[in-house]
Amino acid sequence: MIVLCTDFGPAGPYVGQVKAVLARAAPGVPVIDLFADLPPFRPQLAAYLLAAYGEAFMAGDVILAVVDPGVGSARAALALEANGRWYVGPDNGLLEIVLRRAAAARCWTIDWRPPALSATFHGRDLFAPVAARLARGEPPPGTAAAPSRHPDWPDDLAAIVYVDHFGNAMTGLRAAALPAGVELEVAGVRIARARTFADVPEGGLLWYANANGLAEIAARGESAAARLALAPGRAVAVHRSG
Amino acid sequence: MIVLCTDFGPAGPYVGQVKAVLARAAPGVPVIDLFADLPPFRPQLAAYLLAAYGEAFMAGDVILAVVDPGVGSARAALALEANGRWYVGPDNGLLEIVLRRAAAARCWTIDWRPPALSATFHGRDLFAPVAARLARGEPPPGTAAAPSRHPDWPDDLAAIVYVDHFGNAMTGLRAAALPAGVELEVAGVRIARARTFADVPEGGLLWYANANGLAEIAARGESAAARLALAPGRAVAVHRSG
Amino acid sequence: MIVLCTDFGPAGPYVGQVKAVLARAAPGVPVIDLFADLPPFRPQLAAYLLAAYGEAFMAGDVILAVVDPGVGSARAALALEANGRWYVGPDNGLLEIVLRRAAAARCWTIDWRPPALSATFHGRDLFAPVAARLARGEPPPGTAAAPSRHPDWPDDLAAIVYVDHFGNAMTGLRAAALPAGVELEVAGVRIARARTFADVPEGGLLWYANANGLAEIAARGESAAARLALAPGRAVAVHRSG
Repeated sequence: MIVLCTDFGPAGPYVGQVKAVLARAAPGVPVIDLFADLPPFRPQLAAYLLAAYGEAFMAGDVILAVVDPGVGSARAALALEANGRWYVGPDNGLLEIVLRRAAAARCWTIDWRPPALSATFHGRDLFAPVAARLARGEPPPGTAAAPSRHPDWPDDLAAIVYVDHFGNAMTGLRAAALPAGVELEVAGVRIARARTFADVPEGGLLWYANANGLAEIAARGESAAARLALAPGRAVAVHRSG
Repeated sequence: MIVLCTDFGPAGPYVGQVKAVLARAAPGVPVIDLFADLPPFRPQLAAYLLAAYGEAFMAGDVILAVVDPGVGSARAALALEANGRWYVGPDNGLLEIVLRRAAAARCWTIDWRPPALSATFHGRDLFAPVAARLARGEPPPGTAAAPSRHPDWPDDLAAIVYVDHFGNAMTGLRAAALPAGVELEVAGVRIARARTFADVPEGGLLWYANANGLAEIAARGESAAARLALAPGRAVAVHRSG
Repeated sequence: MIVLCTDFGPAGPYVGQVKAVLARAAPGVPVIDLFADLPPFRPQLAAYLLAAYGEAFMAGDVILAVVDPGVGSARAALALEANGRWYVGPDNGLLEIVLRRAAAARCWTIDWRPPALSATFHGRDLFAPVAARLARGEPPPGTAAAPSRHPDWPDDLAAIVYVDHFGNAMTGLRAAALPAGVELEVAGVRIARARTFADVPEGGLLWYANANGLAEIAARGESAAARLALAPGRAVAVHRSG
């Protein structure tokens, strides 16, 4: 299985072009669109999403992760094996949190280059062919190497990292790392924890452990993002109440 | 064939997570994205869309229908066999109109539960595995039971139920149920019937029997929804002119 | 491989309905979503995109191209074989630039009609079944015929033809046809060429040869379309600076 996590957008040509490459180079391998709308230009926000959402995939699966504002510059290209899963993407911090949380990891710098490499679309030209090779069971076409690291990034990020179609706002905080009774504050509003939407009144705000373990802020039956003007990058404060 | 009809949004992770479950549990079964943008939080509006758009699918196909604001509460989970097609989703009225129009129907309450069931994503954790079982030809993992019914919902809904990418606005009215010469009124404007866009002048308003039999309002070459501020839930009046 | 290039929108039912037809009529053939958001109602803009983005596909591949404001009117339906690739779509100029640039081309008018043909969705009812036939290796169900031509359309279009998810704006100009040192002007701003985003300062404007050869306008790390109010159809001026 190859899993696409990009900021390419859901409609335009980029995801399709990547899939056309994969369909030729790894025929018959299922390709899953996980994210086509990671926050553009911001690898750090995506790093926390990748760590949370990659967990559900299995040994041998390949996660193609592209948020790549430095495409065409000197930044390296990586293949990372973490807990048996493969990750392929640019060396810009996107895989920092996956790597930090992995019990076992090995990393390669991809030094293979395709015959034709565009300056602005390495997702199609470089990362997709490498993902296809890994999905076929071939080794990464590169050299064992340490990725650049980001030791200043926290283990959990107290900020909105993603706003979904409902207007629910995911944070970079793992819910399991938050003590009981914690409230989250965003846009000047303090929000208590609940188990699910139906546990608060219609229109009420809540935060909860989402289905991938992140603390997420919502309003029952409406868009919390619209109500509180939430967007990726916005800071969240954690209050140990009591 | 498994057909996805949800309010999960076209880009974010939810549709992909469901597809990953299906790819593991029903490998090789085609999965079709029919709707990823059913009006959120409003099962009634989606009920009329499901009845109109499910008709094209065949005996043995499985329609996974999730608009589920009560996820994680006590609402039941259903498997419905209607005219040979399977429908899987929450017991909140979403399948009311399918059921009402079915010549033959049988219904089960799903009492199987997965080892890990999140509080907020039964589409992935509960409904998708059940859909995969049905697609493999297995029986529904539950008990024959009547769903909750909504006798107060009309057979045809005089309201906008969906606005498409062009700004065309579908109603919950079956065009075949409307007498000749009917005009539709919405946002204070009365609109006459035409066969297709080219039958009115550029910019002209029309309503027509859409390709799935619903009465739909459009403006030739532009967005009727933008011009008339149409959104799901907005009432439509039917005028028998003459 | 069947490649979908439409203005149907990424979320709603139309792309899925087309795919359901293809899954039945050409089982096992990969289907790629290339564009679901071609500029609606404007076949001319899409014509330059199709010519640029179709190039990557191979002999025998079928490109299903639907921007069809005249659906249900007398406009003809076409099957075009250009450089070994198939294109299927309405005869409204959508294939004009593909045809003009093809070294070898043959064209048919599709005179087959399905048993049930809606007035507003020939993508599903007519073009998809024909695309499936071609993908299976069958001949086009029609008559050799010349398409309508648009000799007044330029070989390269000095206008925005598409705005992507990042806010990058593609023009209908082939970058290779522009002399060195050319600047592009749009919205009163003159923009110089660069190789990739990282070659200008954060927030800087640039144009570059995109990964499919079109001249494209962007702002590093932000949306050029939002900054300059760019939308499909907006004129671009070419300045041979010196």
